[in-house]
Amino acid sequence: MISLLARHPRVRIAFATSESEAGGPLRKIDRKAPDLRLVRSEDAPLEEAEVVFSCLPHGASLAWVERIRGSGAKAIDLSSDLRVPTESTPGWAAGAVYGLTELYREKLRDAELVANPGCYPTAAILALTPLIRRGLIGEGPVVINAASGITGAGRSPKRELLFAEAAEDYRAYAVGNVHRHLGEMRDQVAKLASGRPPELVFTPHLLPVRRGILETIYVPLVEPLTRGEATGVYEEDYGGEPFVEVLREGTPTLAGVVETNLVSIAAIPLGGISAPLLMVIAAEDNLVKGAAGQALQNLNAMMGWPEEEGLV
Amino acid sequence: MISLLARHPRVRIAFATSESEAGGPLRKIDRKAPDLRLVRSEDAPLEEAEVVFSCLPHGASLAWVERIRGSGAKAIDLSSDLRVPTESTPGWAAGAVYGLTELYREKLRDAELVANPGCYPTAAILALTPLIRRGLIGEGPVVINAASGITGAGRSPKRELLFAEAAEDYRAYAVGNVHRHLGEMRDQVAKLASGRPPELVFTPHLLPVRRGILETIYVPLVEPLTRGEATGVYEEDYGGEPFVEVLREGTPTLAGVVETNLVSIAAIPLGGISAPLLMVIAAEDNLVKGAAGQALQNLNAMMGWPEEEGLV
Amino acid sequence: MISLLARHPRVRIAFATSESEAGGPLRKIDRKAPDLRLVRSEDAPLEEAEVVFSCLPHGASLAWVERIRGSGAKAIDLSSDLRVPTESTPGWAAGAVYGLTELYREKLRDAELVANPGCYPTAAILALTPLIRRGLIGEGPVVINAASGITGAGRSPKRELLFAEAAEDYRAYAVGNVHRHLGEMRDQVAKLASGRPPELVFTPHLLPVRRGILETIYVPLVEPLTRGEATGVYEEDYGGEPFVEVLREGTPTLAGVVETNLVSIAAIPLGGISAPLLMVIAAEDNLVKGAAGQALQNLNAMMGWPEEEGLV
Amino acid sequence: MISLLARHPRVRIAFATSESEAGGPLRKIDRKAPDLRLVRSEDAPLEEAEVVFSCLPHGASLAWVERIRGSGAKAIDLSSDLRVPTESTPGWAAGAVYGLTELYREKLRDAELVANPGCYPTAAILALTPLIRRGLIGEGPVVINAASGITGAGRSPKRELLFAEAAEDYRAYAVGNVHRHLGEMRDQVAKLASGRPPELVFTPHLLPVRRGILETIYVPLVEPLTRGEATGVYEEDYGGEPFVEVLREGTPTLAGVVETNLVSIAAIPLGGISAPLLMVIAAEDNLVKGAAGQALQNLNAMMGWPEEEGLV
Repeated sequence: MISLLARHPRVRIAFATSESEAGGPLRKIDRKAPDLRLVRSEDAPLEEAEVVFSCLPHGASLAWVERIRGSGAKAIDLSSDLRVPTESTPGWAAGAVYGLTELYREKLRDAELVANPGCYPTAAILALTPLIRRGLIGEGPVVINAASGITGAGRSPKRELLFAEAAEDYRAYAVGNVHRHLGEMRDQVAKLASGRPPELVFTPHLLPVRRGILETIYVPLVEPLTRGEATGVYEEDYGGEPFVEVLREGTPTLAGVVETNLVSIAAIPLGGISAPLLMVIAAEDNLVKGAAGQALQNLNAMMGWPEEEGLV
Repeated sequence: MISLLARHPRVRIAFATSESEAGGPLRKIDRKAPDLRLVRSEDAPLEEAEVVFSCLPHGASLAWVERIRGSGAKAIDLSSDLRVPTESTPGWAAGAVYGLTELYREKLRDAELVANPGCYPTAAILALTPLIRRGLIGEGPVVINAASGITGAGRSPKRELLFAEAAEDYRAYAVGNVHRHLGEMRDQVAKLASGRPPELVFTPHLLPVRRGILETIYVPLVEPLTRGEATGVYEEDYGGEPFVEVLREGTPTLAGVVETNLVSIAAIPLGGISAPLLMVIAAEDNLVKGAAGQALQNLNAMMGWPEEEGLV
Repeated sequence: MISLLARHPRVRIAFATSESEAGGPLRKIDRKAPDLRLVRSEDAPLEEAEVVFSCLPHGASLAWVERIRGSGAKAIDLSSDLRVPTESTPGWAAGAVYGLTELYREKLRDAELVANPGCYPTAAILALTPLIRRGLIGEGPVVINAASGITGAGRSPKRELLFAEAAEDYRAYAVGNVHRHLGEMRDQVAKLASGRPPELVFTPHLLPVRRGILETIYVPLVEPLTRGEATGVYEEDYGGEPFVEVLREGTPTLAGVVETNLVSIAAIPLGGISAPLLMVIAAEDNLVKGAAGQALQNLNAMMGWPEEEGLV
Repeated sequence: MISLLARHPRVRIAFATSESEAGGPLRKIDRKAPDLRLVRSEDAPLEEAEVVFSCLPHGASLAWVERIRGSGAKAIDLSSDLRVPTESTPGWAAGAVYGLTELYREKLRDAELVANPGCYPTAAILALTPLIRRGLIGEGPVVINAASGITGAGRSPKRELLFAEAAEDYRAYAVGNVHRHLGEMRDQVAKLASGRPPELVFTPHLLPVRRGILETIYVPLVEPLTRGEATGVYEEDYGGEPFVEVLREGTPTLAGVVETNLVSIAAIPLGGISAPLLMVIAAEDNLVKGAAGQALQNLNAMMGWPEEEGLV
């Protein structure tokens, strides 16, 4: 987030907080950052900021965002705390705009509180939206088989994330259709569907790469589509999007999206079976479109700036 | 294959062929190999061998195996040429035993011609067999989402297999349900099913690891099973198998099978959806159980030797 | 080179050549590139270009650069053809400015022909220059133990560069002090030294990473220096350089320089021995400061533009 | 260690200790291990063991080895506690045999206490011994530029060892000629030298691989040697060694030694400089010859068993 903000032509970083490294130089994080010292969040000069990005862990963010809003600043929250309002969500937080820019661009303009989407949901929801909107999804579960680079698991040292453990390995995790991102996906899918929303199955896997998410999604269709027809559907919805790439041929790869804010999508019918099944592959960089890049895209949308500004 | 044979206590390597490196020392391939020179296949002293392993590419193997059989030696063919008999398969070849050891052990004893299974089919068929035998698979396609290390694509230099291209990447290939291993899987599944065999969907992906295959398989069930029940089914079939590991908890990983002849399997029900869906994960080393290891296991079965001999 | 040029605010790409992919879209190389088709070099509209970057292989570049110069355009040659003039170098080529920007910035202003340095020499020469200028290097060879990522070996498919061969491996190559970059290093070192230049020993190694070079250089000194003193020497020479980072503590890492145009340098005295020995570690991205990034930096210097423009 | 012992034909594992996982199954570590439970070291049935391998961390091992010896069992200590006797080393410990098998085989026969060498010293000392014995090393420091896979840093989770940090990185550590293995190297070199021992410079680097050490060693010679002559010297000393490979051509690689107990060595003269300098490259698997493999080789030597038994 700091690296992107430090290179954005219309942004000035007013402060950055860290509990463990308070007092240390912000430039240690990125040499293009301004010459500031990190401060504890309790010492953050909130009044100097027009917009505050909250990068606290899930669970810890809500209270901090409340303080930000209390200071009058707008907030973009990268945690999951505000993404799916529940009965216990306070009123001020329930109005947060879900920051999947391509879907909620209009609401984001002038939004004061944005819930930045999770990494897996960003790719999955963008991959399913054109099909849901048109009622193209048939009976049976939508199976999302996903794989993520290791930064998706955070930077806290855990044995299974060590190079000596993770290199040359690959495995599923959070198995049993229980990953915490499912709620967010189901919530969005329900909002998009006119009738009964499709059921979702989601299995994430840990890839021995640093960054990037690729989701291979199996979607039962109400009727067969050729690749050209399926691609046409995606191009209708995303043709003008600066950060969605729809492939007429070939398939998305991590290499094609890493270090960019792109989501790359291909829709490929599967032959040799009796009922129509479409495979949609979507790839993104989990740290960019799946996190800080989309947060910056949302900032651009909120401020009325060109949406590509500060993003390559 | 040479490395395994050179360490097998009951095997003596009589010769090894190479067209491009004929005349060179076999020890260049493995320092434990006997002090032999590689010979052209036309110069192979077939009469000195009791069993010959054919490791020629798909398409080139059939004629070579015919020569082997003509010499009176038994043959284990690692290519796909003999795995799925077609109308054009010659009579002598049509009787080849499909060498998935756990399924065809009885036929392998005294077999003279063995078709060694493909890497992807080995894991997939072992993962599906207990369910098919019991008629547990319901309506709808079985989705096999597979990922393989790079040795699965062979050793011929191609740009997309370079370290600089493949590291930090991940992608699907052979998309559209058209991979050449599908025929082999369908053939075996049809042999196992009493009624209409399940339809198969198969999508392989290229992993940035050297070796190992992990398949995440989504199987519609005729009725719900708990993990304990599903695991019980697999333990019934594979409880005494030296090279099949059924996990009561946790999930298979590449790290747990690489450099071994194991297939590791877990069967995990998926909750939160209306129709019963079982996820079966199967992992193996594509170069061992998926190729040379299973060939050696088949040799042991053919010769009546202990099946684990020469395999760790 | 295309990716950097396409993002430079003052550059317009007039054409790009490719023999094997002529007719194909330039955007396939980088989506930010202009909407042009690749052309054969014989069809290149040289008259439309003010400056041409030659990225042909060593040996093939000289004739092409001659054509460029004949058209009147300035040329920046990324091959080694012009770096070390020999007796057979034609007169027009002998005047090429060696484009190690930090050393030859003045000559580069208004240069019409630039020989862009090799990847290994860039780091080595920048690491040794401050010591040579001050006569600080003592008797005995300077040992340059270098390691490079795999892109340093180019993109042509060779078996030893395959992921399955290179991952989890590490090895020396071009052993015996015979690497072709030695001539370039010796030539520059001789130009910098007032007396007898230091003798160089250079051993490159192949690292299982995609990009980056790190050189660990052992330099005999005429007298002991503390780390502070040694660092001071480097800061004197490079204090104002935008792309040279001198570390007062810690050591250079690949992670710290990859995807940037930086050379990161630390000078660390080695204790516990009788004669003074300084270890200088220098790291860079072989594709940026070691190739295209420095070429762009040279363009900036030639045109009188800010040297950091288009480089992060 | 457990994996090797469990496959050794003459070894029966009597117990294994773990403070953190006491009570858990030993088979969790290796499926070929006997059906035992891990015990706390205080509960270890020392009286059941003929030989005990101590794998405690440096500093913690000495007291535990004292207990082992008190029980009457022989001990092989993999820590550094007994490798370099100092004034404070108790008398019973000072007599430990330094277990570099190739050098101290005679002393190991009937030894009751063995100090197993460090990973870096094993390769370095084997690489230097033939030159030291013959007085071939000239004036000036011997520079050992070493690189190790990440398992060399242990299994404790630290941020710099995470996949996301270590992949695609490479860096020196313990810089300044201060690594704790220097004492062990200097001690052995002094024992081998008849006159003044050579001075050592040692710089380790962290490689993005799981296992393996490669040391590139620069040795000043008293007189020039051709590669043939230098290789002859090594073959004289190591010709009959099962675990030392001397290369007449090519260079050692990690891929060639990983998962084996080999040290692979090449001695290559460096041309183009005035004083004779030999580059010796030595590679080994830090977890096998650099640790548990050599410990098992030492067990074989102690027991009078064939030295290759249980080692591939």
